[in-house]
Amino acid sequence: MQEQLIAKVMDEIKKRVETENASQGARPAQESFKAGANPGITEFVGTAIGDTIGLVIANVDPILHAKMKLDPKYRSIGILGARTGAGPQIMAADEAVKATNTEIVSIELARDTKGGAGHGSLIIFGAEEVSDARRAIEVALKEVGRTMGDVYANDAGHIELQYTARASHALVKAFNAPAGKAFGLAVGAPAAIGVLMADVAVKTANVEVVGYSSPASGTSFSNEVIIMLSGDSGAVRQAVIAARETGRKLLETMGGAAASATTPYI
Amino acid sequence: MQEQLIAKVMDEIKKRVETENASQGARPAQESFKAGANPGITEFVGTAIGDTIGLVIANVDPILHAKMKLDPKYRSIGILGARTGAGPQIMAADEAVKATNTEIVSIELARDTKGGAGHGSLIIFGAEEVSDARRAIEVALKEVGRTMGDVYANDAGHIELQYTARASHALVKAFNAPAGKAFGLAVGAPAAIGVLMADVAVKTANVEVVGYSSPASGTSFSNEVIIMLSGDSGAVRQAVIAARETGRKLLETMGGAAASATTPYI
Amino acid sequence: MQEQLIAKVMDEIKKRVETENASQGARPAQESFKAGANPGITEFVGTAIGDTIGLVIANVDPILHAKMKLDPKYRSIGILGARTGAGPQIMAADEAVKATNTEIVSIELARDTKGGAGHGSLIIFGAEEVSDARRAIEVALKEVGRTMGDVYANDAGHIELQYTARASHALVKAFNAPAGKAFGLAVGAPAAIGVLMADVAVKTANVEVVGYSSPASGTSFSNEVIIMLSGDSGAVRQAVIAARETGRKLLETMGGAAASATTPYI
Repeated sequence: MQEQLIAKVMDEIKKRVETENASQGARPAQESFKAGANPGITEFVGTAIGDTIGLVIANVDPILHAKMKLDPKYRSIGILGARTGAGPQIMAADEAVKATNTEIVSIELARDTKGGAGHGSLIIFGAEEVSDARRAIEVALKEVGRTMGDVYANDAGHIELQYTARASHALVKAFNAPAGKAFGLAVGAPAAIGVLMADVAVKTANVEVVGYSSPASGTSFSNEVIIMLSGDSGAVRQAVIAARETGRKLLETMGGAAASATTPYI
Repeated sequence: MQEQLIAKVMDEIKKRVETENASQGARPAQESFKAGANPGITEFVGTAIGDTIGLVIANVDPILHAKMKLDPKYRSIGILGARTGAGPQIMAADEAVKATNTEIVSIELARDTKGGAGHGSLIIFGAEEVSDARRAIEVALKEVGRTMGDVYANDAGHIELQYTARASHALVKAFNAPAGKAFGLAVGAPAAIGVLMADVAVKTANVEVVGYSSPASGTSFSNEVIIMLSGDSGAVRQAVIAARETGRKLLETMGGAAASATTPYI
Repeated sequence: MQEQLIAKVMDEIKKRVETENASQGARPAQESFKAGANPGITEFVGTAIGDTIGLVIANVDPILHAKMKLDPKYRSIGILGARTGAGPQIMAADEAVKATNTEIVSIELARDTKGGAGHGSLIIFGAEEVSDARRAIEVALKEVGRTMGDVYANDAGHIELQYTARASHALVKAFNAPAGKAFGLAVGAPAAIGVLMADVAVKTANVEVVGYSSPASGTSFSNEVIIMLSGDSGAVRQAVIAARETGRKLLETMGGAAASATTPYI
């Protein structure tokens, strides 16, 4: 009888919470809606973590094409956009250009992450055939799950690490990475953490510093310091891992446990 | 008796939640405070949706006037500012300048929307008489309710559509709109959605593309793509509606139902 | 018996809430973690309100040193970074340089405050000895508690006031303040509030306007208007207090009670 009473109370609580949500204009339950489901639009490819969306346009309107300052040789474009993340999407795009007959035509970083300290992103692929653009977006959406693996976040901020044995066009475009060489990235937010991560990374191994970005220079006013590294693959990997250890300790000291967004890959 | 018990449990829960809120430093209930009520400041005009506030200054201090780089001929200014929204406030300001003896002296877009993907805004009206400035702000505050009608948002982002049969000074200033002609705006956030909305808009009807803004160009690093359209009023309206249909489907695929912020007007 | 039942129901609710949190990937309780505790990193100095962190590096890596464009004469740096706040941290840094043998080498403002309308910050101190850098960061971290005292925030935005009888290097660097003279700052967000605060401040007392920043000019696209004042200490203080009274009334009209983040000091 006590059990029945408890169940009844729980039902009552549930009912009241729902009523309250409804009265506050919360979104009504949509039986028919399934997140990530194809919205019945040909150009839709899919979605991924970080409010990432992938789209293609087979023939971009010529006037829009000019306004977007796209290279005229690409009629078709692939579009990879996200609210949360630039590094993961750029790394994913790098794999996508390696695997397909496409090129990166533009990479833009919004100041976003939905109240977080970092960037969102808009990456445009150019292709002569829409099937190539679609394939690139498919690869990139799949890769984002992996490249989010060394993003660690808590309420105080986040750190992000990236590593690849061979940088391709997206990394050249976004970070001036030497093509074909190993490339690594270490990001700390708030930016103060990133400064120490950068120092640890370059002291750990014999790597080349390709770039250094900070809130007022090289970022879109994000609260990040980013260091970009190139060189011997073992050294780059080692540098990035050392930055991760330091950054994560500092971040967790500020805001508590900071778990991987997916599964660490480095 | 069960009913009494349930009531007692609900009371207990309520009490504990309140205690917890209080211990977390939550704002105490302010019986005396009424949001939007006149704070007893002559310069206050009113508030509107989107954390919009309207103010006037009868005689701007001459030194401040110079620092703000205002045209010396306007002693009085009207101030329209918001945390959430630039398009809606600019459209509202456009109606206000049509209806009053004022001019738009500056429009600035903050990167805001309280953790959202878009802009906040600061719009300054110039007037020779403070009564004109006040009237302009009153009109604008009233219009914001309408111009928020085709803003649709969910957790993943937002889309925004605007349309007017006749563009006036605010739209000329903010978007380089041809004066006196129909003008439309389509915004998608995350920016990827905006790219497809732009393509759909220009393919739908014979319109002139007045402008195209993206995270790194023409926005304040917001996660938006914005297309500005001019031309025949029927064509502009049709283009904007087509962009809305596509944008809303994509946005809802990402984040669930995205309802109008007020009431759709286009 | 009723009491027992209530306790049982409360336990059940607690259990279900925990289960739900866990299934949503919420951070597990970390018994071993203590926020602000030393993470076992030599470079860590401490933390403060606003997700502020203080670090030192005894010998910055020479390549990183060059990339950061630091003056070569400073081997050691102090790092003060925050998610929420630029003014409070800059004021705190100003006290720190007064008290120690250090210099401010850079001040960068991120667009941050975790979904709020303002800035985060990254401030780098240069020192010849790491002990000096550490001392500066210790002073700054301690001062941040005080300089947050005239920050008043609610859901609609925030206002911030700062005052010092004698501006030193950090204020010179950040705001072009005349060294050795009284300096004051008034910030309003949304920016519209800041415009009126600026007008009130300069009309209240005979002060010199050192600077005026707005979303599109002098800020990192924050939704703020900032006025910087110099002059006679009594006049500057009076101007700042008048701006506070007006700003707070407007902010509370928009979003309800806006309490001091710590304890008012002006």
